Amino acid sequence: MLKPIAIVLVHYPVLDRRGDVVTSAVTNLDIHDLARLAKTYNIARYYLVTPALEQQQLVARIVSHWRDGAGAVYNPDRCEALDCLRVMNSCEDACNDWQGLVGQKPLILLTGANQPNGMSFDEARTLAAQHPLLLVFGTGHGLALGLHAPDRPWLVPVRAGQYNHLSVRTAAAIVLDRLLGDAASASQLP
Amino acid sequence: MLKPIAIVLVHYPVLDRRGDVVTSAVTNLDIHDLARLAKTYNIARYYLVTPALEQQQLVARIVSHWRDGAGAVYNPDRCEALDCLRVMNSCEDACNDWQGLVGQKPLILLTGANQPNGMSFDEARTLAAQHPLLLVFGTGHGLALGLHAPDRPWLVPVRAGQYNHLSVRTAAAIVLDRLLGDAASASQLP
Repeated sequence: MLKPIAIVLVHYPVLDRRGDVVTSAVTNLDIHDLARLAKTYNIARYYLVTPALEQQQLVARIVSHWRDGAGAVYNPDRCEALDCLRVMNSCEDACNDWQGLVGQKPLILLTGANQPNGMSFDEARTLAAQHPLLLVFGTGHGLALGLHAPDRPWLVPVRAGQYNHLSVRTAAAIVLDRLLGDAASASQLP
Repeated sequence: MLKPIAIVLVHYPVLDRRGDVVTSAVTNLDIHDLARLAKTYNIARYYLVTPALEQQQLVARIVSHWRDGAGAVYNPDRCEALDCLRVMNSCEDACNDWQGLVGQKPLILLTGANQPNGMSFDEARTLAAQHPLLLVFGTGHGLALGLHAPDRPWLVPVRAGQYNHLSVRTAAAIVLDRLLGDAASASQLP
């Protein structure tokens, strides 16, 4: 059964290593890794957000190769995973699309490595069982702080420690497993 | 504190999509993603196994860029993570090196998406608290079955379900988080 959770991979607005707000470039492996992750965890939508038209066209070409081109024959598993992918101009568009699909306003959760006072995974798991969720991941050096709002809390980082520089692919995998993996389900038993 | 766990990323012997045993090509992002993951989870060694000399030279060039070249200035976090990386000719060489470092024979755990009767994560966590561990991940379509032996058990797949096609990067992230993440530590409390 599909989970009422969508993931968003944001290429704008994100930070670069200087802390400036930029549009990051799409990474081919992010398209596949997060689509396969979404499919494996029964997630209904994977929104890839970039306002850059050329980048949107690049994603469309890649997806077309795996869905309709030689890739569909070469690797049908990749093809199947891409069904959940939607390219969007902005986080707001992604949120609106997801709201239309689930029929109610989703809870938006922002993720990042620098928000130690964010919502705990336990709390997020409880909320995810009650509300449709939109889980937002940043590329580059993380989501722009301007995305934060009182009704858009941060989730705590995956690791508290001196070194916490996971790629967005691996961080998203860990977050989804904590929220939806077998251990997460077990912990929701009465 | 460094954990007595090492990870191995195997490029030979692995399966291709037809089930033949092959040497897969090194993926640049695997080098970084797994090194950053290892560093984040305090893992002492990340062994990248390939017997192909040109592939070993390619890894050496990439590492040199990030450790000694322009990359070291551009992104010191990547540079730091690569400290734990060692390129090896074979799984046996990786195991011997790790045994030399920890002073005893490590428990070798193989990972894959097709071994539902493998060791549970609970059991693996318990063992990891008692023995040095060598966690082996396959590229391509997974580890060659010939790597299996009675004293080299499989770990159960991350997900039991119809679709279970995670990239090795995201699967490794989930496995390490289950074995070493905060929830794993909490579950070891009496």
